[in-house]
Amino acid sequence: MASKIRIALDAMGGDHGPSVVLPAAALSLQRHPDLAFEIYGQEAVLRPLLDRHPTLAAVSTLHHTDIAIRMDDKPSQALRYGRRVSSMWLSIEAVKRGQADAAVSAGNTGALMAMARFCLHTMARIERPAIAALWPTLRGESIVLDLGASIGADARALVDMAVMGAAMARVVLDIEAPSVGLLNIGVEEVKGLEMVREAGRLLREAPPPGLTYHGFVEGDDIGKGTVDVVVTEGFAGNIALKTAEGTAKQISGYLRAAMSRTIWAKIGYIFAKGAFDALRDKLDPRKVNGGVFLGLNGIVVKSHGGADAEGYAAAIDLAYDMVKQDLMRKIIESLDLDQRAAVETVSAGGDA
Amino acid sequence: MASKIRIALDAMGGDHGPSVVLPAAALSLQRHPDLAFEIYGQEAVLRPLLDRHPTLAAVSTLHHTDIAIRMDDKPSQALRYGRRVSSMWLSIEAVKRGQADAAVSAGNTGALMAMARFCLHTMARIERPAIAALWPTLRGESIVLDLGASIGADARALVDMAVMGAAMARVVLDIEAPSVGLLNIGVEEVKGLEMVREAGRLLREAPPPGLTYHGFVEGDDIGKGTVDVVVTEGFAGNIALKTAEGTAKQISGYLRAAMSRTIWAKIGYIFAKGAFDALRDKLDPRKVNGGVFLGLNGIVVKSHGGADAEGYAAAIDLAYDMVKQDLMRKIIESLDLDQRAAVETVSAGGDA
Repeated sequence: MASKIRIALDAMGGDHGPSVVLPAAALSLQRHPDLAFEIYGQEAVLRPLLDRHPTLAAVSTLHHTDIAIRMDDKPSQALRYGRRVSSMWLSIEAVKRGQADAAVSAGNTGALMAMARFCLHTMARIERPAIAALWPTLRGESIVLDLGASIGADARALVDMAVMGAAMARVVLDIEAPSVGLLNIGVEEVKGLEMVREAGRLLREAPPPGLTYHGFVEGDDIGKGTVDVVVTEGFAGNIALKTAEGTAKQISGYLRAAMSRTIWAKIGYIFAKGAFDALRDKLDPRKVNGGVFLGLNGIVVKSHGGADAEGYAAAIDLAYDMVKQDLMRKIIESLDLDQRAAVETVSAGGDA
Repeated sequence: MASKIRIALDAMGGDHGPSVVLPAAALSLQRHPDLAFEIYGQEAVLRPLLDRHPTLAAVSTLHHTDIAIRMDDKPSQALRYGRRVSSMWLSIEAVKRGQADAAVSAGNTGALMAMARFCLHTMARIERPAIAALWPTLRGESIVLDLGASIGADARALVDMAVMGAAMARVVLDIEAPSVGLLNIGVEEVKGLEMVREAGRLLREAPPPGLTYHGFVEGDDIGKGTVDVVVTEGFAGNIALKTAEGTAKQISGYLRAAMSRTIWAKIGYIFAKGAFDALRDKLDPRKVNGGVFLGLNGIVVKSHGGADAEGYAAAIDLAYDMVKQDLMRKIIESLDLDQRAAVETVSAGGDA
């Protein structure tokens, strides 16, 4: 039992709550038999669902609580009534206490981030955590951060994100020295926001160990997969993410309309159905579900609130991978190495 | 001749220069016979091209200059060697002198913006111009601004953009009181950057005449067409634009790969070719080419540097429309009305 990977689940979070969370855990367990779960939520609801999945029940511990965080509560409200007692809080606290290796929740992002910060605290030197996610690209997958937690992050925070994102890429994408780009509105050094230019200067002059600094990238470089890790402040990152989602939906809408416009198109659709299915699969947001909170003393993964069991299972799989590959230790080492490198540069009379 | 709409063309701008600009002007002239052109560039190159289009030649005046702005020059460099003498500058100056009603250039954006500001100056009260463009949506088209000129715009600048964007929507989209949304990372009033929240408060408490303030919108609302006008500061706007372009290219790439994967898909493609052509048409960036500089004492339209004749002609058509519908007067009136409304609110003891 000691070698199990233990995931704490906020079973009440998300639009669908336990009816998605438990089947998802069962799915993920099929793929990773060394998983074990600490499940937090209403026992009366959870027990009958768990009984339908005996294999899951065998590796799960149920912890009853009546209190669930609502999807539309403000972080402050959620903290007021949910601290120490809600399924969301308890799943995070399980990580803090060492009862679980990571927590997964589909609950409201703001409340989850607030509770995760309050309970786990940020790592030394990190002021605000970042949300990182896998982004499908023409080359495969990249990691993009921050997707909405660090509004107005400064240059130093952007550099820390580069370090943490690169550590995540080493673990999740299995790349030795991931290439890192700073999202900007042009590739020239003179363009863009001051904090982005300053972060570019820091990364250029004293590149942290364990990553290859590529330079600035633009919005269209994300989908191209120009770099393994795209770093940006949370406001622009969130807008990029939502705009890409909107564009994908828009084009799917056009495509659907086009394929049902004429009888020839409909016939063509029948012939090409396999291809369309493959395309739908490629664009399936469930495959890359899971926003990872980076910079906390523990792993917390946010699943999309509307995720179905397959989507939620992808978030559990991601948490599993990161624990298995020891993400936390790698981030701490990377930040530490970077700090030491920066200190050495300074004492060697470098201009960092 | 007095009723002609006169466009000044920087014939040397863009990746392809005169070989695109002149055929584009000929195309646009076919659609709008009341067009006339002032063409700036190297006579030795332009004359033979113009001779191939006698209808165009008949309504065009050629102005020779040897100096063309390079695509990769910094604005300061461009101003140094190109002020008063380059084809870019002269086409803008034609607007200032009243020799043309609008200028179109496919030259480098930074240089064009710098020259346009230097030559035409911004309107009273406008500190920095914005770049606005039509954005295809599921409902039709919306206007999005700013796409990269007003990095870090403050709340007052965002409100002015709302007013100018709405005036453009009245003219270009023919909507009486266009709905305007502020791009943010959530629809709640408490979220996002301070300047965006403050702009939201200003628009909510004292909505400018001639527009309907919708509230905050998120990145995915752009493609949905939730509002007629999306207002954002230039950094986020540019990242949204480029990310959407990147996502569209990415999905087109997936689709192409999917349709050539199996023999069935290839057969399906043949049947559905009409539908695919319609889709390609829908996604054709040439159809909506043209970034409009708003907030200057004159109309300047930036065509995409890589545009072909069809794309460049779309930029000329856009300039034509805006002159024909008297965009300048409508913007001035709107800004003026908004100012008066604000003053009245204050003197009436309102909290604006």
